Amino acid sequence: MNAIDATALTSLLDGRYAAVRADVRTSLTDHAGFLDEVEELPRAEYRDRVLEVLLEISATGQSGLGFPKEYGGGGDVGASIAAFEEMAGGDLSLLVKSGVQFGLFGGAILQLGTARHHDAYLADIVAGRLLGSFAMTEHGHGSNVAAVATVATYDPAAQEFVIETTQEDAYKDYIGNAAAHGELAVVFAQLVVGGEERGVHAFVVPIRVSGEVAPGVRIEDDGLKMGLNGVDNGRIWFSGVRVPRTSLLNRFADVTEEGDYVSDIESAGRRFFTMLGTLIQGRVSVGGAGIRASEVALTIAVRYALRRRQFEATSETSEDLLLDYGQHQRRLLPLVARTYALRFAQEVVRDDLHAVFSGAETSEHARRELESRAAGTKALATWHATRVIQECREACGGAGYLAANRFTALKADTDVFTTFEGDNTVLLQLVAKGLLTDYSSEFSEMDQLAMVRFVAGLAVDTVLERTAVHKLLERVRDVVPIAGEREPDILDSDYHLAMLRFREEHMLGGVARRLKAGVDAGRNAGEVFSSVQDHVIGVAHAHVERLIHEAFSEKVRSLPEGDLHDLMEQLCDLNALSVIEADRAWFMEHGRLSSERSKAITSEVNRLCRELRPHARLLVDGFGVPEPLLRAKDLLG
Amino acid sequence: MNAIDATALTSLLDGRYAAVRADVRTSLTDHAGFLDEVEELPRAEYRDRVLEVLLEISATGQSGLGFPKEYGGGGDVGASIAAFEEMAGGDLSLLVKSGVQFGLFGGAILQLGTARHHDAYLADIVAGRLLGSFAMTEHGHGSNVAAVATVATYDPAAQEFVIETTQEDAYKDYIGNAAAHGELAVVFAQLVVGGEERGVHAFVVPIRVSGEVAPGVRIEDDGLKMGLNGVDNGRIWFSGVRVPRTSLLNRFADVTEEGDYVSDIESAGRRFFTMLGTLIQGRVSVGGAGIRASEVALTIAVRYALRRRQFEATSETSEDLLLDYGQHQRRLLPLVARTYALRFAQEVVRDDLHAVFSGAETSEHARRELESRAAGTKALATWHATRVIQECREACGGAGYLAANRFTALKADTDVFTTFEGDNTVLLQLVAKGLLTDYSSEFSEMDQLAMVRFVAGLAVDTVLERTAVHKLLERVRDVVPIAGEREPDILDSDYHLAMLRFREEHMLGGVARRLKAGVDAGRNAGEVFSSVQDHVIGVAHAHVERLIHEAFSEKVRSLPEGDLHDLMEQLCDLNALSVIEADRAWFMEHGRLSSERSKAITSEVNRLCRELRPHARLLVDGFGVPEPLLRAKDLLG
Repeated sequence: MNAIDATALTSLLDGRYAAVRADVRTSLTDHAGFLDEVEELPRAEYRDRVLEVLLEISATGQSGLGFPKEYGGGGDVGASIAAFEEMAGGDLSLLVKSGVQFGLFGGAILQLGTARHHDAYLADIVAGRLLGSFAMTEHGHGSNVAAVATVATYDPAAQEFVIETTQEDAYKDYIGNAAAHGELAVVFAQLVVGGEERGVHAFVVPIRVSGEVAPGVRIEDDGLKMGLNGVDNGRIWFSGVRVPRTSLLNRFADVTEEGDYVSDIESAGRRFFTMLGTLIQGRVSVGGAGIRASEVALTIAVRYALRRRQFEATSETSEDLLLDYGQHQRRLLPLVARTYALRFAQEVVRDDLHAVFSGAETSEHARRELESRAAGTKALATWHATRVIQECREACGGAGYLAANRFTALKADTDVFTTFEGDNTVLLQLVAKGLLTDYSSEFSEMDQLAMVRFVAGLAVDTVLERTAVHKLLERVRDVVPIAGEREPDILDSDYHLAMLRFREEHMLGGVARRLKAGVDAGRNAGEVFSSVQDHVIGVAHAHVERLIHEAFSEKVRSLPEGDLHDLMEQLCDLNALSVIEADRAWFMEHGRLSSERSKAITSEVNRLCRELRPHARLLVDGFGVPEPLLRAKDLLG
Repeated sequence: MNAIDATALTSLLDGRYAAVRADVRTSLTDHAGFLDEVEELPRAEYRDRVLEVLLEISATGQSGLGFPKEYGGGGDVGASIAAFEEMAGGDLSLLVKSGVQFGLFGGAILQLGTARHHDAYLADIVAGRLLGSFAMTEHGHGSNVAAVATVATYDPAAQEFVIETTQEDAYKDYIGNAAAHGELAVVFAQLVVGGEERGVHAFVVPIRVSGEVAPGVRIEDDGLKMGLNGVDNGRIWFSGVRVPRTSLLNRFADVTEEGDYVSDIESAGRRFFTMLGTLIQGRVSVGGAGIRASEVALTIAVRYALRRRQFEATSETSEDLLLDYGQHQRRLLPLVARTYALRFAQEVVRDDLHAVFSGAETSEHARRELESRAAGTKALATWHATRVIQECREACGGAGYLAANRFTALKADTDVFTTFEGDNTVLLQLVAKGLLTDYSSEFSEMDQLAMVRFVAGLAVDTVLERTAVHKLLERVRDVVPIAGEREPDILDSDYHLAMLRFREEHMLGGVARRLKAGVDAGRNAGEVFSSVQDHVIGVAHAHVERLIHEAFSEKVRSLPEGDLHDLMEQLCDLNALSVIEADRAWFMEHGRLSSERSKAITSEVNRLCRELRPHARLLVDGFGVPEPLLRAKDLLG
């Protein structure tokens, strides 16, 4: 396969955003010294330096790609995600600070505001002249954002909202740009107009004036964190803070000059989840960043394993390379395959996002499917990052523990990816809810009780019939044999897909059946939910795994015949078989794998690892991480 | 089960070392502010403060328990391990610095030296007046310590050894106490006497004189690490450093005044591994510390889950406690059960260690079994710590990411536990080697090639017949039914044990068969090894899991009937069934679980989690972590 070089792989991975990605790589390479520089910087200085470098990079336009051109942006949502993903090759505080400023704060103004807010703020935000925060999460309500207890009461006489932190634990927490640099915050609060509660809305609230904390606002620093210490996270309390009526970000609801509340969306829940739906770019971005961080880790660990010798194994006189050990291949190569798979799955999410947010795709159903796909891909991609970075650190031994070798920051900084922009477990529940309700128009705002009741109100067959998966049932039944009956080719990608689909559908039916049976038996809906929660998470997992494999196998299918196609096909097989292997117990329990076949899959994974071993360097070079960003001179020589 | 209180659990866990542990808890509580204090201290100051506090704690005698009384020690090896484990409840740099000074450095002088070294150094070491390093690991030879390339050449004319770093990557690396505080180092080097290579020996070498780096010695700081930044790790090069003949730690070999090399142990390999065998206290200590760190993490996460409410699940009006969610129970409670299991397994290792090192147990075979058990328990305990701390951090959401809430340091500091005192993967290979060779007297010094040849030279049946496992075969066959035939009580502890034994023996036979077949077929022994390496690691894993369950179930059996017994029995069942569940694919593949039974085991794990839910607080309180060491005010209220 010498015909392939790393740049061909990089082009394949980069796809249509190759130019944008190359630009960001250049910026990061120009600032590669930053990784060293900040390593032992005290927190306050680290934060200030992050801001400085962020503004330098912003000046290139790379952080404003998602904003309309009239405000100095690039007018290309997909490109903005790609640029963000690529930035994860550098210092991750820089990345997250960028995400806070341009994604969360700027994104909220763009998506939830209207012309008056855009005209007032966007040009300054894009240029980095106006820094701000996204103040949604409260200490007392992490994931349950619909329950925030900050209140915005409309005062018709003054035509102002009064923002108030109403409960002890209702302060905004973990808010980026809050502790030091933010001037404005987009604050999410329960709106009360004329004594009536209207649900959660977003308001533009000054938190600093000329560098001083604004009157009525109290800010505390969140202090040292596990990582991302170049980002100034803080806590905010509001006490009688008054903002003008026009501060309400009024794309989906408004309070008129006459003091009337108006909205095209009737349900308060639906309205809030519609707002949230416009903000999923952050979620997609974090997933992509997790994948990129994994690529950095794998590049270092694989290259180390191709250089480091340890113990005489095949000869009396010289030690063997780590990557020539079967166990070491097993540790790293399936993770490389999975990282490729996630790259292609992320491409689908990014393209879907671009289609919906650029207006090319307008169906409500597509939007809801995007929300689910974004949630699921983020969860699996960020857990993958946590696992990969840990495995790579251990695979580099003691040297992996030294900060100069990159894993220290990678590990500490990415750790919170599994929690922010949606806790992964909560996100998988959202995915399951979508599947169980076939993305019914209310699905995203349903709470657990409502979802259980919804499902219990349907016949189980209805749940299945409504799912996309079900439409493929015939084909699945055809290809997934009953254990021991017939044996399709173990490397047949359709077989892999059929197995993953069968698992998904079977689990989905099982969950629906259990929910229904529990409620029919008169049990408390919440307890029913709790007792099947592992199955709920399981079905979401199975669904996302199927989407990931599908994305990879479709990519392989799109490639012209040749070495590149064949290499990608092997990687795709390795990923699919690793996924099936990891859950082979389930397939045996459900009669779709014989014990012999199950063992054969494990052997095949080992064989694929051996076959891919000679291409290991090529595969990680394909990630295209610029050499200066790897640091790790000790490990890479 | 209200009859049990947490102190009863703590007594059970603490066993015979309750008093020692209580003393250490008091010391740590007295220094609880240290956890806060060092959080953002610059590295140099952190190191100095660690040394100060270490000396304060040493003054209580708690760090010298393992040394003979005549040098100011406590004369109790087991107690010294227990005290070290307990210290892991506090700052882990303090722990590791203590380990370097008293365990590694002091331990090497004690175990490898003779009266002249003891008299010269031990009293000062125990009192903390003489600080030192343990300089074994080289940059180029992490795990393969027999291959170190530092050379000590005997100069008969001067009656001195000349210590030399002979290769570019042969500098000593990651050496604690080297970068700042150490005066002496125990240096491992290839001894050359009269032109003849004698293998690796240990020498006492001054690395600092009056605070200045000694002539011929070069030291570099290892720089910032992922964690443990209160320990001054460094790199050391030696260039023509001369030390007197008496600097050789001569318990196992000596160079006489006449310049002759003498040793009671003929083989150089055996000699070195005999030396290493005397140093396994460090390994046992690290395993125990990993368990203690897990206890701290679980105490915080479980207590948070008993306080934190999120989402309305069982009621429209109030949110539910995290630990009332089935998924959250699944996340945390099996880890609690496993932590108890590991505590009891660690107790067995500690007692065995005490017996061997106090001279109560003198058989060579017992010593070799201890080496294997220490290696395996360390590997599983430290991987457990990595997993537990990660899961607990995620289970505490964003708050878990704040340094004040303890996970930051726990995660960063314990990460290297899987690597130091023996890389876990390498340790499991040692365990497998012991099993495959029935702890033959040469097993520990066999390299992979030798081991493969040894096994290939035996009939497979011989391998099995020689194993302890095999002796229990009859009983196993009796209790582990062929899938679907008979179904023993799913909660029968003998059934669990039989399943684990069956797995171990079956895997062991499989590895022996594959090694033999590969070599018989004329394949390169190293390649044969590489291709079965995952099975080699697997059999070691299975063996250690069996030992852990055995330790727990024997502990349960030793308890008088009553509530405490019943609670521990449930925990023991949960651990055993979780282990079987995690590998249920294997049991199905090998015909020992039907698919129905496999599903029943999963249901049973869920049921046990629900049953243990009301005892969750009691179980973590039983760990006895002093409240001030938990910090985490945010999480615990």
